Amino acid sequence: MPETLPKADPRRIARFLREVGEIGADPRGGWSRLAFGPEEREAHAVFERWVTDLGLTSSTDAIGNTLGELAGNTPGSALLVGSHLDTVPRGGGFDGVAGVAAALEVARLLIESGGLNRTYRAVVFSGEEGARFGAPCIGSRIATGAFTTDTLSTLTDREGCSVLERAAEVGLRPTNAAEAVWSQGSVSAFLELHIEQGRVLEARGRTLGVVDAIAGSTRVELAFSGNADHSGATPMLLRHDALVGASELVVEAERRASSHRTAVATVGDLEVVPGSFTTVPGEARLSLDVRDVDSERQRELAEELLDGAGRIAARRGLELSAVLVSDQSPVVLHKPVREQLARAAHERDVPFCVLPSGATHDTAHVAKAAPAGMVFVPSRQGVSHAPDEWSSVEDIARGVEVMAAALRALDEQEGP
Amino acid sequence: MPETLPKADPRRIARFLREVGEIGADPRGGWSRLAFGPEEREAHAVFERWVTDLGLTSSTDAIGNTLGELAGNTPGSALLVGSHLDTVPRGGGFDGVAGVAAALEVARLLIESGGLNRTYRAVVFSGEEGARFGAPCIGSRIATGAFTTDTLSTLTDREGCSVLERAAEVGLRPTNAAEAVWSQGSVSAFLELHIEQGRVLEARGRTLGVVDAIAGSTRVELAFSGNADHSGATPMLLRHDALVGASELVVEAERRASSHRTAVATVGDLEVVPGSFTTVPGEARLSLDVRDVDSERQRELAEELLDGAGRIAARRGLELSAVLVSDQSPVVLHKPVREQLARAAHERDVPFCVLPSGATHDTAHVAKAAPAGMVFVPSRQGVSHAPDEWSSVEDIARGVEVMAAALRALDEQEGP
Repeated sequence: MPETLPKADPRRIARFLREVGEIGADPRGGWSRLAFGPEEREAHAVFERWVTDLGLTSSTDAIGNTLGELAGNTPGSALLVGSHLDTVPRGGGFDGVAGVAAALEVARLLIESGGLNRTYRAVVFSGEEGARFGAPCIGSRIATGAFTTDTLSTLTDREGCSVLERAAEVGLRPTNAAEAVWSQGSVSAFLELHIEQGRVLEARGRTLGVVDAIAGSTRVELAFSGNADHSGATPMLLRHDALVGASELVVEAERRASSHRTAVATVGDLEVVPGSFTTVPGEARLSLDVRDVDSERQRELAEELLDGAGRIAARRGLELSAVLVSDQSPVVLHKPVREQLARAAHERDVPFCVLPSGATHDTAHVAKAAPAGMVFVPSRQGVSHAPDEWSSVEDIARGVEVMAAALRALDEQEGP
Repeated sequence: MPETLPKADPRRIARFLREVGEIGADPRGGWSRLAFGPEEREAHAVFERWVTDLGLTSSTDAIGNTLGELAGNTPGSALLVGSHLDTVPRGGGFDGVAGVAAALEVARLLIESGGLNRTYRAVVFSGEEGARFGAPCIGSRIATGAFTTDTLSTLTDREGCSVLERAAEVGLRPTNAAEAVWSQGSVSAFLELHIEQGRVLEARGRTLGVVDAIAGSTRVELAFSGNADHSGATPMLLRHDALVGASELVVEAERRASSHRTAVATVGDLEVVPGSFTTVPGEARLSLDVRDVDSERQRELAEELLDGAGRIAARRGLELSAVLVSDQSPVVLHKPVREQLARAAHERDVPFCVLPSGATHDTAHVAKAAPAGMVFVPSRQGVSHAPDEWSSVEDIARGVEVMAAALRALDEQEGP
């Protein structure tokens, strides 16, 4: 079977990365193509041009997921490959876009080797990064029915604008999100290639990772409130300093998470109000992100830290508010799909290993609605969500060949 | 002598506070009349209108200090009373402006009781608050020769613009700052009324405080730099989290300062870069303000904290940069002036006590060039640099009467 597929072309992959990289380059370094911003839509337009050039039929759904379809010979459910094109603020040039480049190159390999029986779709999910609205994977969660238009109205950015408003601003139809939901059984399998964003593959010298499970993520926004007093005239013992309380929590989050091998806890953002040299901080707002591949430990750690925040606030006479922004359980990926990916890598002598994903991905949500699998390519020094994120287009090309072969095998299988 | 002075009018004081309070009201609460911003200039214009109405001659120097002069009968040095009209971001309605209202009401009392032998000047210093440019008391330090035009070009705001640029933007002539320097011996005494910004007077039930010393302040801008990695995919042990390092310092600053009775250490501002839910903080910038009335302990504490920051950075594999923004020694105020203020309060049966000032004031800088004294009025609950800062106009009126009487006594004294 491997013989029937042509080789993937790293230069085509590099060209797509370059074209998308022309959009949203941040003057301070890196790329800012935020979820449901105009730059994300511009990047989707580049994808549409590429699918059209390949002879695929492009379409965009109500929430901005963009698809390129290669119709199959048999009716029934389709095989999908995809990722996303949005970034965190000042993010890197490979997170998401590498997987979209791969979905396009898979399409080319399939076309040049006679297509599939089933319909193939390359898909770009909108709003994968949670940085802007707190909740990640908005497009894939709409498509799989986990989110509705109502959810979109409750998720807001720093300016207080909802996904509903922001998506409408860029010409989408978020109030019609129900139209974007995939019909039952319409997807027979979904694959995603993504950069690892960690150091495991590099450390083990592997070209590819086959993901077995995706860590869950509990995200909370916390705010400590105290008294905004004069920094010179307020003795230490009379202060209610919101930032010292928040800082204790930051230190405690690191300490508690470090005692578990796979758990992580991150305070990625912290804002001080009023934020002046000469004023005791009256308010400190922070984001807390707790992850683990073990569902129970993830929730336990998040609860321990919320309890810790409550104890800090009580001891310091601060008020505390906590808002649960999202709470995703870990997801174990579909075993038959994982096996096809591992077999394809093995047959092609691609050095690979099986590993969990610490980061959330659209795959975690798709896996609840359809069989799903995922492959990782190495990230140089594990750097991600940062301007110097880098992966090799040769590694991505190997991932493309493995995914295309796995799709071929899945296409031959019985089923709807 | 007390009999010769009329009573101060709390309603006039309240009216001035109200008129200035119409400028720079922040929609989020409090007032934002930042140093060398257009709102500060607008407030100075209100002061000019008031001095003109009183029959005084108004003038503004190159750095924006505004003066109202009541010419005396004898040539030679003048007696000055003043404060400032700028605020921290979202500051209160009494810090600075209470002292300017007092200087105006002192002028009225002097005029109605026949004036002084010496010339009297009500003065509003520009740029007293250090919040915008890091360094406080810019106008008074220009007037007393401690700062020059060169200094102004090195002090910058968050946008990277210098005092030189900002002052020129609002129509001042900061490159001619040398013209604003007071000539040697031209000031025989300076008095300032200010809100206490602490809880001592309230706790002791006093109407007035006579300040004996002003705490020094060492201000440093620190930045920890680490790696901006993905929050999900980077194990705790491989992180170089700039915010956890900064947080350890925030906690240490509180702990060390709390072990000294009069020392305070404050991290009033902290910024995280890139500041995203899903990115390990790559950089954390913070402001550190260390104060004490004991010069040696102030410097020791600042050094201890800088050493602590260095140890934290080394242990965590972070880079650390530290920039000394300003370093003011404590100042002991002029004894004969303090005695005149205490005597005037005593003769008027105004309940007062002698106390140090934890906050820096223009008086600390004037004291290096001329005999200077300062009085405090109580701050409700010690709140300051915050929207609910409040002091009584009746207390301010008592302060006005005490200052006017002390000025009378100083006016009678021999000297240049």
